[in-house]
Amino acid sequence: MHMSNKPNTPKGMRDFLPHDVIRRNYIMDVIKTRFERFGFLPIETPSMERRNLLLGKYGEEGDRLVFKVLNSGEKVKKADLDALEKGELSRFGNSIAEKAMRYDLTVPLARFVVQHQNELSFPFKRYQMQPVWRADRPQHGRFQEFMQCDADSIGSDSILLELEFIQMIDEVFFGLNLQGCTLRVNHRKVLEAISRKSRAEKQTTTFLTTLDKLDKVGWDQVLQLLAKAGFDNQIINTIQEALQGKSNADQLEILQHLIADESSNSTPFDDLNFLFSNMGKMSSLDVVFDWTLARGLDYYTGTIFEISAPKSVSLGSIGAGGRYDNLTGVFGMKGMSGIGISFGLDRIELVLSELDLFPSEIHTSIDLFVVHFNMEMMTALLPYINELRRRGKRVYVYPTAARLKKQLGMANQLNIPYALIMGEDEWKGEKCIVKNLNTGSQKAVQLKNLNWDVIQVC
Amino acid sequence: MHMSNKPNTPKGMRDFLPHDVIRRNYIMDVIKTRFERFGFLPIETPSMERRNLLLGKYGEEGDRLVFKVLNSGEKVKKADLDALEKGELSRFGNSIAEKAMRYDLTVPLARFVVQHQNELSFPFKRYQMQPVWRADRPQHGRFQEFMQCDADSIGSDSILLELEFIQMIDEVFFGLNLQGCTLRVNHRKVLEAISRKSRAEKQTTTFLTTLDKLDKVGWDQVLQLLAKAGFDNQIINTIQEALQGKSNADQLEILQHLIADESSNSTPFDDLNFLFSNMGKMSSLDVVFDWTLARGLDYYTGTIFEISAPKSVSLGSIGAGGRYDNLTGVFGMKGMSGIGISFGLDRIELVLSELDLFPSEIHTSIDLFVVHFNMEMMTALLPYINELRRRGKRVYVYPTAARLKKQLGMANQLNIPYALIMGEDEWKGEKCIVKNLNTGSQKAVQLKNLNWDVIQVC
Repeated sequence: MHMSNKPNTPKGMRDFLPHDVIRRNYIMDVIKTRFERFGFLPIETPSMERRNLLLGKYGEEGDRLVFKVLNSGEKVKKADLDALEKGELSRFGNSIAEKAMRYDLTVPLARFVVQHQNELSFPFKRYQMQPVWRADRPQHGRFQEFMQCDADSIGSDSILLELEFIQMIDEVFFGLNLQGCTLRVNHRKVLEAISRKSRAEKQTTTFLTTLDKLDKVGWDQVLQLLAKAGFDNQIINTIQEALQGKSNADQLEILQHLIADESSNSTPFDDLNFLFSNMGKMSSLDVVFDWTLARGLDYYTGTIFEISAPKSVSLGSIGAGGRYDNLTGVFGMKGMSGIGISFGLDRIELVLSELDLFPSEIHTSIDLFVVHFNMEMMTALLPYINELRRRGKRVYVYPTAARLKKQLGMANQLNIPYALIMGEDEWKGEKCIVKNLNTGSQKAVQLKNLNWDVIQVC
Repeated sequence: MHMSNKPNTPKGMRDFLPHDVIRRNYIMDVIKTRFERFGFLPIETPSMERRNLLLGKYGEEGDRLVFKVLNSGEKVKKADLDALEKGELSRFGNSIAEKAMRYDLTVPLARFVVQHQNELSFPFKRYQMQPVWRADRPQHGRFQEFMQCDADSIGSDSILLELEFIQMIDEVFFGLNLQGCTLRVNHRKVLEAISRKSRAEKQTTTFLTTLDKLDKVGWDQVLQLLAKAGFDNQIINTIQEALQGKSNADQLEILQHLIADESSNSTPFDDLNFLFSNMGKMSSLDVVFDWTLARGLDYYTGTIFEISAPKSVSLGSIGAGGRYDNLTGVFGMKGMSGIGISFGLDRIELVLSELDLFPSEIHTSIDLFVVHFNMEMMTALLPYINELRRRGKRVYVYPTAARLKKQLGMANQLNIPYALIMGEDEWKGEKCIVKNLNTGSQKAVQLKNLNWDVIQVC
């Protein structure tokens, strides 16, 4: 068959072969168990939300990336042809699409909390691991469907939650055996104070979005952009110099002194000092204060944090989060302060892959391979095999009599450690042969004595 | 806030609260582990497929139920307004939707096998547990998004696979502790032979679709419909009477005798006799031959089977499957006989719920609740709590100092069995109080001696 005739996945969307699923499940299991150990409970929301619920929540760029779902049946008759003619494609789309695909797990969470407020106990700690969809231009490492792994706590503004989040993030990477990640921590109110000090009052938005470009364009470029936007860079330069090479605690003290002003209260520094003095020794993470961390234009209002992969792997953020004070406000439920973290499964997979950190045992998905010589023997063997299965062993029975070499070749491809072989002689003697496919050693075992202990000492 | 202002899920789509997710995960875990024990490996496919890949595969009715995804950006300009004007709504939709939502897991499997044929070992045994979407009119128990749990083996026509599938289905229900389900088994070639015998050659399609209505309309109605379509019901009445009350083996013998004709070979009866004589004693299922089982117009070509819930629960099929000889043929890959099973998660959930078969321990999602009196004590406690967490215990720390009654009320709502309480006195004595929230008993424990063994004997 010619390649070009092969059916394939849509651009930007992926199949996962067993090898991939097993690696991804391994990561998700580590994250999920750590979420649970910190008291988070699982929820799931539908893949589709009402279109109006999503649009307007992610900025103009975000709105364009929301996948809309075409109305079924007669409902497409409402197509707004006037909008189409005028080139107002978004309005045209809205006229024939009542539903849209989940773009992240945060807006659905806000909707969920408001909708089910009477069924939940607050502070409500939930985790959610589900795919999201974005109509982004597909490119290397960027997909239109990808998995998000989020935990959020809603309904308390206690700084203790920040502390637990940091400890939980550390436990996740400890669980993945991944050393050398950096957790950068900042506070939106610190950035707001710096923005004010730079004599560009009310330009905090510009300040944040400019600072957010730091990773991409570098420091000099950021300073130029700020100057162009009317900022006085003197204070920024002073801060940058004064904090250079200082410890986290010292940086906080210096910075608080530098930017103190009548309109800022001390809360952000209280928060940050609390965190850095109480977080204790980390197992896996390097936690640093970074006043340049901005986290774009997200809904964050307090602490913000971002996890970077080890420096040896050239990848950006592999997770991020922060505190938001008004997530559910847009749906009419005020005063629900929240804090959340989102792990990027795809990027963590790349990091573990590059550093060769997947445990080899996860790739043993089948414990035992059963060679097939004839159907009569095989049906006689099945009860013994099913007894192993009931005790939790995973057994692949080759379904037809093929050449032994072909059958064992398959066992090899599937990375199966043991094989069970029954030839005529064994059959007559009510025995079978157990073979260790890694060492090649084998032995005969009476069928009535067959169990996993006997197999695994072969 | 007024109810009508609350945001909500789209019609036919559901949120799952922690209680729901935990129950669903319990069922999926049982199914998944049984799939794995029978040698199936996990794969995942994208939520969206190319629209053309899906359309035309599910019949006319199915095509109408496929959700289409609106093209992004400029691509909606290609809207076929002529089609809209003529009321050809499907053609109009196709002109602005290149992608569509997964409608089942079977067509994506066929696409997957053909696309990745060089990366797979055959017979390829895969399982897949992912949601599917259908633009069906929402009604009680029918949703537009629902989970399918499928296992298929592709690339071998061995009847041994049928036998293993039956044993696997039995193991699933044994694992769920659900007794009294019935597995009905039939063979498409038996139905074809009966259709021929009824002097309605080439009307097998009508025969199958009519028979498929049996559950809904009853036997008399089916006979009337068959007569109207030109069938001679004499042979059908004869079969029905002759098989009444007979054992599976006897039914097969009688039926083979009744419908033997020159154009039918004995294969279906060989297959069915093999299964009924080799399946052994079931742990949970009642397996019966049922010549009236038709399984609609699916792609099946050989054995077909369907699982019914226990009679005490008035629910139809909770799972079904069968053999198909040409799944990948439509994508140009011939000769890949396959066999598959699909479990209906939602209906199994209803059955277990109705029969109260969920193990109570799955609803303990958090092991320990930590009462909060003041922040200083709490931060001193955290290292001890985190040690419990590292050892796998799930701990909810109340984030602020609230009234004890309020805090313990939350522990109660979350069904948490133990609480840890530290007041001023304990704090000074480096102790804490462990409280069993079910019995009310409590004891003081030195912090340095705190571990799960000490907690759970309280």
